Amino acid sequence: MRTRPLKVALLGCGVVGSEVARIMTTHAADLAARIGAPVELAGVAVRRPDKVREGIDPALVTTDATALVKRGDIDVVVEVIGGIEPARTLITTAFAHGASVVSANKALIAQDGAALHAAADEHGRDLYYEAAVAGAIPLIRPLRESLAGDKVNRVLGIVNGTTNFILDAMDTTGAGYQEALDEATALGYAEADPTADVEGFDAAAKAAILAGIAFHTRVRLDDVHREGMTEVTAADFASARRMGCTIKLLAICERAADGASVTARVHPAMIPLSHPLANVREAYNAVFVESEAAGQLMFYGPGAGGSPTASAVLGDLVAVCRNRLGGATGPGESAYAALPVSPMGEVVTRYHISLDVADKPGVLAQVATVFAEHGVSIDTVRQSGKDGEASLVVVTHRASDAALGGTVEALRKLDTVRGVASIMRVEGE
Amino acid sequence: MRTRPLKVALLGCGVVGSEVARIMTTHAADLAARIGAPVELAGVAVRRPDKVREGIDPALVTTDATALVKRGDIDVVVEVIGGIEPARTLITTAFAHGASVVSANKALIAQDGAALHAAADEHGRDLYYEAAVAGAIPLIRPLRESLAGDKVNRVLGIVNGTTNFILDAMDTTGAGYQEALDEATALGYAEADPTADVEGFDAAAKAAILAGIAFHTRVRLDDVHREGMTEVTAADFASARRMGCTIKLLAICERAADGASVTARVHPAMIPLSHPLANVREAYNAVFVESEAAGQLMFYGPGAGGSPTASAVLGDLVAVCRNRLGGATGPGESAYAALPVSPMGEVVTRYHISLDVADKPGVLAQVATVFAEHGVSIDTVRQSGKDGEASLVVVTHRASDAALGGTVEALRKLDTVRGVASIMRVEGE
Repeated sequence: MRTRPLKVALLGCGVVGSEVARIMTTHAADLAARIGAPVELAGVAVRRPDKVREGIDPALVTTDATALVKRGDIDVVVEVIGGIEPARTLITTAFAHGASVVSANKALIAQDGAALHAAADEHGRDLYYEAAVAGAIPLIRPLRESLAGDKVNRVLGIVNGTTNFILDAMDTTGAGYQEALDEATALGYAEADPTADVEGFDAAAKAAILAGIAFHTRVRLDDVHREGMTEVTAADFASARRMGCTIKLLAICERAADGASVTARVHPAMIPLSHPLANVREAYNAVFVESEAAGQLMFYGPGAGGSPTASAVLGDLVAVCRNRLGGATGPGESAYAALPVSPMGEVVTRYHISLDVADKPGVLAQVATVFAEHGVSIDTVRQSGKDGEASLVVVTHRASDAALGGTVEALRKLDTVRGVASIMRVEGE
Repeated sequence: MRTRPLKVALLGCGVVGSEVARIMTTHAADLAARIGAPVELAGVAVRRPDKVREGIDPALVTTDATALVKRGDIDVVVEVIGGIEPARTLITTAFAHGASVVSANKALIAQDGAALHAAADEHGRDLYYEAAVAGAIPLIRPLRESLAGDKVNRVLGIVNGTTNFILDAMDTTGAGYQEALDEATALGYAEADPTADVEGFDAAAKAAILAGIAFHTRVRLDDVHREGMTEVTAADFASARRMGCTIKLLAICERAADGASVTARVHPAMIPLSHPLANVREAYNAVFVESEAAGQLMFYGPGAGGSPTASAVLGDLVAVCRNRLGGATGPGESAYAALPVSPMGEVVTRYHISLDVADKPGVLAQVATVFAEHGVSIDTVRQSGKDGEASLVVVTHRASDAALGGTVEALRKLDTVRGVASIMRVEGE
């Protein structure tokens, strides 16, 4: 074993960073044995230098992250600051000064992954980011390496723990959205401003990263269709249950049937209770992968938290350190397929639509005609009503989102349709 | 991209080998793009050269596997023959002649993994075998690489599809073992001689491999305690259900509480219905991993079959080819921890024991005294009986297997205990 240590610079020392530093210290002998050389924490860049950080030598702490990554003797930079800047500039500076980079930054990788990979390649360095998607769950390495000889056709994932906690609470307790959100906030599962989670921004960044890796192409954040889950109601859960389903916020990345394009989207959807994703409870994450040869795989675990995220960061750190010792780099970006990303209108799936209608003869015929005119085939209809008010629940066969959108627009114009109570996609069948 | 192809020799062209060859042909452009060079099937060693093999150039087929691996121009040997010999000699010969090796051979790796890794290291070549455990499920790479910065404490897996199919059928239909086995055989899930599956030999080989990788140590096949599942009855399932459990054949690899030793075992066990492994149906496999930082992870998918196994083989093939192009080798064996493997008697778990007893006063007191004398603490007792016959179901707190064994031996000597109807461990709580 080499005795000269590999030097690691840590950018950020919050929940994840402090756990990375702690494990680097407490498990130093194991890490050295697995890498083939000791690793040394050579510097820690923070915003608040005066904060006491247990187990971290104050002499290593600096507020000058730029100087740290420019030192020239750093082998690996671990970036756990988050956000676009200064993380982006620090990472490119790190490559230019000879370091490889391990990042947990989903927003940055989703937005600028291609440019960052290019910068890493230019300098012959590694860029690893297992922690950016689904925390501790090994997902990027399995997709990029284990399935490198296979053809992935679909990725269906619960990749946001906050929203899964909220939806699980609504499902099990019958609570409404606000009540479940309040509980999640009180328990620390939701942030004071939950927008990034509940509006699907966080999941969309992960969907962009997953789609790119799964399909060997580039999917930009803007390419991901995004709908949040704030409109999901207790009534939707009741409807789902009647269908033998539950509701999850899903990130869905699909290859078109002809293989020539891909789609990526985030939205709440009904999935059958028999689907493995339906049993993913509380704040857990899970990603279901369908590939040509392997068939159906699922990866399950904690999607966030200091320790789980640190586990993923350290796994990458070991790999990157080994690569440096061996004078090699790991598999970088693989975007050779260069597939176009189709708009949401071309996505084909099934729909569950609840309509409030007038309770009089002929309404069902009118509604059915609208579906038929738009080429959307109906699977089942359930009609119920009293006192002049009635509801119609229509479940369709597979249809394009554009066709469904046209159908709903036409339905809203019918005199007999008082309102469209909810539209939800049905996935995982 | 390099234009000179990497040459692959395929040893064995059965269900898995023919699928590997097919995908290498049909997905040649994708594989080349992902590797950075084309891969060429340079030879296929078979036992029956006259069999027609669709898509394989007859000129590549040979019965002389030894000559093929000795050619000297082979970059990677893919071994999908199975069994100990001639596979072992062919693999070591391949290393000596400059090839890296991808194998799907669980029996060989479990028995001789250390020697084969040493041979690979001696010649600076790779030995990869993702397909040897749980078919297509990425498991060896996640354990060896993704969790390389973490400390795995426990691996709990359903790693044999045949037995899971049988147990799932018994659970869902109420069938007995023989009836469920007959169904599995008729559907092609069980072989004509199912011994390797139902007696746990197959799972034990996988447990040895998983324990070695998870704990960075060596676990020999003989170190794995093995009990088959042929004695599991419909009555056991009824008992499990009363406990809120089902029964699975589990491979369990654990680090002792003090971290200084490990255990590996295969046996049927009750697990709570709320445990993610309880929902693994039919012939699917799943492995649950508990680690210090990442927490609880699960990997799920098809554990066998030509295409899924080929997917795992090809993922390894891409990795090994990349390593060759980069002049590097991947992570080899990591057995630095050199932990002793403790015998089954030191395993600590809970037990569900059914006793047939005389229906008279004082029996429970006698039985409880025996448990207490052996230091086995009782969690719950359920007593039922009629017409002079009664049964006692005892569920214990955690106790060592040795203490439980002593307890059962003493119980059998009691006049009032007519028989020990079943003993089953309770896991996953």
